[in-house]
Amino acid sequence: MDCFSTEAIVQAMLDFEATLARAQSDVGLIPSGAASSIAAHCKASLLDCDKIVAASSRAGSLAIPLVQQLRAAVATVDKDAARYVHFGATSQDVIDTAVMLATKKSLAMLDSELGRIVFALANLARVHRMTPVLARTLMQAAQVTSFGAKCANWLAPIARSRWALRELKADALRVQLGGAVGTRALLGKNGGEIARLMAERLELTSAPAPWHTQRDRIARMAAELGILAGSLGKVARDVSLMMQSEVAELGQTVDAGRGGSSAMPHKKNPVGAMVAIAASIRAPLRVAAMLSTMSQEHERGLGNWQAELAEWSNLFTTVHGAAHALGDLCSMLTVDDVRMRANVESQRGLVFTEAASQLLANELGKNEADALVQVASRRAVANDSSLAQELRIALAADPMSFGVVDESELAAVFSIDEAASQAAWVIDANLDELAAMRALD
Amino acid sequence: MDCFSTEAIVQAMLDFEATLARAQSDVGLIPSGAASSIAAHCKASLLDCDKIVAASSRAGSLAIPLVQQLRAAVATVDKDAARYVHFGATSQDVIDTAVMLATKKSLAMLDSELGRIVFALANLARVHRMTPVLARTLMQAAQVTSFGAKCANWLAPIARSRWALRELKADALRVQLGGAVGTRALLGKNGGEIARLMAERLELTSAPAPWHTQRDRIARMAAELGILAGSLGKVARDVSLMMQSEVAELGQTVDAGRGGSSAMPHKKNPVGAMVAIAASIRAPLRVAAMLSTMSQEHERGLGNWQAELAEWSNLFTTVHGAAHALGDLCSMLTVDDVRMRANVESQRGLVFTEAASQLLANELGKNEADALVQVASRRAVANDSSLAQELRIALAADPMSFGVVDESELAAVFSIDEAASQAAWVIDANLDELAAMRALD
Amino acid sequence: MDCFSTEAIVQAMLDFEATLARAQSDVGLIPSGAASSIAAHCKASLLDCDKIVAASSRAGSLAIPLVQQLRAAVATVDKDAARYVHFGATSQDVIDTAVMLATKKSLAMLDSELGRIVFALANLARVHRMTPVLARTLMQAAQVTSFGAKCANWLAPIARSRWALRELKADALRVQLGGAVGTRALLGKNGGEIARLMAERLELTSAPAPWHTQRDRIARMAAELGILAGSLGKVARDVSLMMQSEVAELGQTVDAGRGGSSAMPHKKNPVGAMVAIAASIRAPLRVAAMLSTMSQEHERGLGNWQAELAEWSNLFTTVHGAAHALGDLCSMLTVDDVRMRANVESQRGLVFTEAASQLLANELGKNEADALVQVASRRAVANDSSLAQELRIALAADPMSFGVVDESELAAVFSIDEAASQAAWVIDANLDELAAMRALD
Amino acid sequence: MDCFSTEAIVQAMLDFEATLARAQSDVGLIPSGAASSIAAHCKASLLDCDKIVAASSRAGSLAIPLVQQLRAAVATVDKDAARYVHFGATSQDVIDTAVMLATKKSLAMLDSELGRIVFALANLARVHRMTPVLARTLMQAAQVTSFGAKCANWLAPIARSRWALRELKADALRVQLGGAVGTRALLGKNGGEIARLMAERLELTSAPAPWHTQRDRIARMAAELGILAGSLGKVARDVSLMMQSEVAELGQTVDAGRGGSSAMPHKKNPVGAMVAIAASIRAPLRVAAMLSTMSQEHERGLGNWQAELAEWSNLFTTVHGAAHALGDLCSMLTVDDVRMRANVESQRGLVFTEAASQLLANELGKNEADALVQVASRRAVANDSSLAQELRIALAADPMSFGVVDESELAAVFSIDEAASQAAWVIDANLDELAAMRALD
Repeated sequence: MDCFSTEAIVQAMLDFEATLARAQSDVGLIPSGAASSIAAHCKASLLDCDKIVAASSRAGSLAIPLVQQLRAAVATVDKDAARYVHFGATSQDVIDTAVMLATKKSLAMLDSELGRIVFALANLARVHRMTPVLARTLMQAAQVTSFGAKCANWLAPIARSRWALRELKADALRVQLGGAVGTRALLGKNGGEIARLMAERLELTSAPAPWHTQRDRIARMAAELGILAGSLGKVARDVSLMMQSEVAELGQTVDAGRGGSSAMPHKKNPVGAMVAIAASIRAPLRVAAMLSTMSQEHERGLGNWQAELAEWSNLFTTVHGAAHALGDLCSMLTVDDVRMRANVESQRGLVFTEAASQLLANELGKNEADALVQVASRRAVANDSSLAQELRIALAADPMSFGVVDESELAAVFSIDEAASQAAWVIDANLDELAAMRALD
Repeated sequence: MDCFSTEAIVQAMLDFEATLARAQSDVGLIPSGAASSIAAHCKASLLDCDKIVAASSRAGSLAIPLVQQLRAAVATVDKDAARYVHFGATSQDVIDTAVMLATKKSLAMLDSELGRIVFALANLARVHRMTPVLARTLMQAAQVTSFGAKCANWLAPIARSRWALRELKADALRVQLGGAVGTRALLGKNGGEIARLMAERLELTSAPAPWHTQRDRIARMAAELGILAGSLGKVARDVSLMMQSEVAELGQTVDAGRGGSSAMPHKKNPVGAMVAIAASIRAPLRVAAMLSTMSQEHERGLGNWQAELAEWSNLFTTVHGAAHALGDLCSMLTVDDVRMRANVESQRGLVFTEAASQLLANELGKNEADALVQVASRRAVANDSSLAQELRIALAADPMSFGVVDESELAAVFSIDEAASQAAWVIDANLDELAAMRALD
Repeated sequence: MDCFSTEAIVQAMLDFEATLARAQSDVGLIPSGAASSIAAHCKASLLDCDKIVAASSRAGSLAIPLVQQLRAAVATVDKDAARYVHFGATSQDVIDTAVMLATKKSLAMLDSELGRIVFALANLARVHRMTPVLARTLMQAAQVTSFGAKCANWLAPIARSRWALRELKADALRVQLGGAVGTRALLGKNGGEIARLMAERLELTSAPAPWHTQRDRIARMAAELGILAGSLGKVARDVSLMMQSEVAELGQTVDAGRGGSSAMPHKKNPVGAMVAIAASIRAPLRVAAMLSTMSQEHERGLGNWQAELAEWSNLFTTVHGAAHALGDLCSMLTVDDVRMRANVESQRGLVFTEAASQLLANELGKNEADALVQVASRRAVANDSSLAQELRIALAADPMSFGVVDESELAAVFSIDEAASQAAWVIDANLDELAAMRALD
Repeated sequence: MDCFSTEAIVQAMLDFEATLARAQSDVGLIPSGAASSIAAHCKASLLDCDKIVAASSRAGSLAIPLVQQLRAAVATVDKDAARYVHFGATSQDVIDTAVMLATKKSLAMLDSELGRIVFALANLARVHRMTPVLARTLMQAAQVTSFGAKCANWLAPIARSRWALRELKADALRVQLGGAVGTRALLGKNGGEIARLMAERLELTSAPAPWHTQRDRIARMAAELGILAGSLGKVARDVSLMMQSEVAELGQTVDAGRGGSSAMPHKKNPVGAMVAIAASIRAPLRVAAMLSTMSQEHERGLGNWQAELAEWSNLFTTVHGAAHALGDLCSMLTVDDVRMRANVESQRGLVFTEAASQLLANELGKNEADALVQVASRRAVANDSSLAQELRIALAADPMSFGVVDESELAAVFSIDEAASQAAWVIDANLDELAAMRALD
């Protein structure tokens, strides 16, 4: 994703300058001939980008050398027009607007990657509606759920972030136009109309007032990217845990060149999960950096605005990379439902302890039921048998409990399919809520 | 703010347990007598909080010892009811819900503090609509704006965060009810109705599905607190800069015991700004911590959920403290408009360079105008005079420019009041936009 | 750990004031009677701590109300002495010094916890020198190592951090004494001697000059705590992965009340790992907060010093909690070497691919060897056999390779014990390096 | 600084491969002809870097495509040698070592920039040993210090970080050589000697054992860079405050193209401070990211090692940029000692309140003295006079205090030069301590 490459930013800055001149001409602030001359030069290929970059480190921003070059270029063909280059604008106007233009493109690419993930996970959720899989809490086998429910839980936060980014985009991607200190002093009473025209033509949101030091909308979008990275990381983490050799519930279709090992040719590394996990570690710090830059002094900050710019593109690149990698992973994911069931079975029914206790408590009282189940659990492990079997033995042996529990009820408690089916509603509940807020579109 | 004190959390946990039992009784899942017995014991004063806390570090959470104590207490009066304590719920259900209850209270307190700030700043913005003050960029005097415009720029992001927190509150403050692994297995077909009833009675948002590992809504609220802290910090930073001895544009009314110095009795330290700045440094890291905890493994994470809880209350306390301190500061702020004007005047008119160049360019061309202004600027500094004066001398001396510039136009360019009045629209534009989104209510 | 409780800090502040007065008396700056009167009142139990805390939020620090109370108390018995209370010192002097005193205690406690971990891990490293265990890279089975080598890799960074903290302690735990602006103006030529005497008596390092805004030593110690948290988190993460139900290579001895589940009585949750993982998530952000406070303005910062103080104690508490929990975990760890071997065996010899390719390449060339191993690997999976077996079949069937590989060499390549023994040197290399730098003492 | 450019890293990786082959040949593990053939191809210009980068995103690292290309290239001229390319090494070996080689260069460049800063600040400290300047605490005028003392306080932490980086460099810049899982399995008993030879030839520190997942040394260096960034930011922050138009105590020599403004030609922006402040905001988050990656799973982490690599180079680039910019700033700094004195004088003697109270307390008792000074302070402000003058009036008017204070003593208390001279020892104390630890070399 090179939406934020120097070339792309320089062109976006030139788009700002051209649009500014045209809007000023439309409202009669500058001659229309000047606007045409300026716009004709607003092509990155006509400027010396390397020279602009080289000068920017001393000047403190790209804007000053860019405006100088542009003005000089315009002057070669239209001396009068040169004075209207960048007229009434300030460095932050052109840079902030250029960054918003780059962000718009970047968000479109991200939205498309997220669409792939949402589609893949929604599909997995539906297909594996009833597929039993171990539910694990605190990294330990706990009970049984359905793999479809897992997918729905993965999906929902990602779909919400996608939805939230669309909402924020409409609010945050604003043209910046304030002049030197945010008062549009040189633009006079036409300032508002010029800003409105520029927003329309650049397809950005119109800004009733400049937002030079009002960085909350920017920070809110950065935060949403951080949240998204966390949600992508959650999926990647779970997938990587389920792809462990000893768990082996998930795999990925083989693909030349992906995830090989330089020392171990037999390995297939989860590269997609790797990229998403790396992003989920890095993105929170980018967000913190953005938040740390918000105390921008007076009418333009010293250092904090510049730090914000540097973090912004990095954040987008990182999160886009994660979404792309996870999109690939989700599309390539193979589900081993046989192994999922086998992993449940290897728990010897201990994952049904809660339900068994509950069933017995109805007849024996809670304390007795708990005690019975606890003893049977220990025997199941010691005897390499199962909790169900040991419970049957114990119930049969105890005169008090003999016959009190119906065998079909007991079998239901230990039914892996029954347990998975009890999780299926989670899929509907999540997808319905997302659909209602139009987050699945 | 002790919404998150151990006592408050324990009581909120008990509120969960009481409401759970009542809702279960209402749908016929447990006997109504049991629900009454349980609810009767759900008072923190009846339990041994210290013992619960002591046991929690070994148990890994407050929930297990609390449920044990509660069950034992219920059993002393209603043995049958004891088995229905915490029925069908898991530790995370009770803790997450309790934290949401505490958060609701905390948000109400924060909203009220923000209301004070918004009120004070909106008032300052209106009163100082035309008060000239130096606009400063990159920590240097730049041009002139109005102090009201500064206040409007301070206000807008805070008002938006207040508005955003209200929106997020309606979405994020959900009851948590999922049972051991988020499937509400023991609650059967009544699970949804129980969750709905609980939300209604606890005045939380209903959750169609549990959000055990869907932490995005929580993270979004944390992020908004971080954004708010940044916006509070911006005001505090600017105020502290304007309160510097050498600037002295702002002060605070004297108040016994506030901001004294142990070694320097003459000092009045800006304690309000201090607290807000400290929070604006710390909050971004809390947000990053929250985002870093999002990869919660499988159906309940190991360590990350626990870290999230610890950061959450700290973040609220920090930001609430900042809002309270800044609310005090804004209410106590004294504005020295005479000094503001004097600071502008001490710039010798150099802050009007852009406007002067603009005026002259109309007659002399941009290059000539720029050159003339540059020379005059240097002379103003060297001669301890002003740019206006030096320009008049230069214009008079130069046959080419003699008489080309109207004196009244020149005077207008150097009018401090005129410059301030050009900034007044910024106040309207910001307040109107906020009013339109109902963010000033 | 309540080294940083308000009570402890208040007493440490009083220790500063008492020691300051005594040192000033020793050099003849104040009357010895005054010093005695002051010292006699420097007991937290004689002051009203709640009132000090209540006043501190308005005053901006604990120091001002504390000094006021102390002065008033001294005045009741020795009016002349009252004026010498806190003489020549500033709020930051007393607070920084008090925090260093609390830090000294906290470091001693942490050192002791780390000692337990180092001891336990060194012991495990030696006992399991030759115990084979799967080596895993990118969360996938890779090759074989020894469990002792894993323990040595866990141990080394922790031992180094313990060593580094001792080094930093000697440098960083300095008395603070600078007076209002760090020049010891009121102390005159005796300033240095007073500071030296105070350091001696408070058992802190002497500070040739005040370090009011030189926070690098403090930041360095904070960073080391963050590094330590990362190293503790690494152990906890690995242990939690090895305690997964499907891996089951590690466990913990059962202990009443530890790690139970409110919904699932059969579970034993890795609470020790949980606490350490939580700390490893949170500590990096505390370190970042500390680093973010370093730009403390002029002779004492506004907000950043205060933020630093708040983060400091939290960081120590978090990391100490993690060390304590991990110390418990390491002491309770049970090692299932049978399961470790079984997990290696379940890989069907594929973890020896590299070594097998290497052996065959000597005779057949690299390309032929790689191809042979790749085909055999696939067959081992498909036929539910092993790589060794499939290789023997392939070698026997191929006239070119028949007899070229010695069976004993082939057996050695697939020897699990042989592979583990090749890792044993890692233990020695790490322990020797640590011993040489005296990091195991 | 392009020490970490892809081209530089690729060449450093090739240097690893060449040195590995040579060392293996020296110990007799591979034929010397093979080593020569390999080494001959280890030039970045001979490979297709773009193709390596393109393949790396799928492969998960640069190492696999690089080794493949290198092996293919070697095979074209020496088929037998090809199998010894990268023999016994793993991706992490080559990448970690390459990053250490790049780091070595980067540290040398940074050390040189820091040398400029240390030199400039030490010089300023000596020159302005007695130059009075306002000491400011909590952003308010407090007392008087010397500008030299300020410079010494700026200097010391930077010199210590420079010293610490040199120490850490010797420890942390280690060759990485562990093979697939850190056991050097294929290298057999020669592993240690090969690693030693490689370290010697690459001029890195020898590693007795691999540090694949022992990232503490790396983290420690990252943390030191973060500390350094904080110390650079402190200087930049103070300088920017002292360069404010209203303070004007510092300036910078004019330099074409540096710090201009696109809208305000009269402005000279502190670009050097800007860059250093931006870095001091960003670096702490990079450090936190590094610390957050430390829980690298098992024998090589999934995502966290990769995240660490990405943060590492960014951190060095950011901090080097800050050091370079601040080095320029320090060299260009102009000191306006007249304005410094004028700013002190404008405080009307109120900055000597503490000393005046002290002087009077000797004669009048503390309470009387404090009261007298407080009244006189208020009058000085009200009457636009000075504290000294008002005190003289008050002392003369009060029969009790008449004649008790010697005029020459009173004059000494209010002597600006005297106050500055009392701060001079701070310079010596700091420079002496730095010299003793050889941190000024």
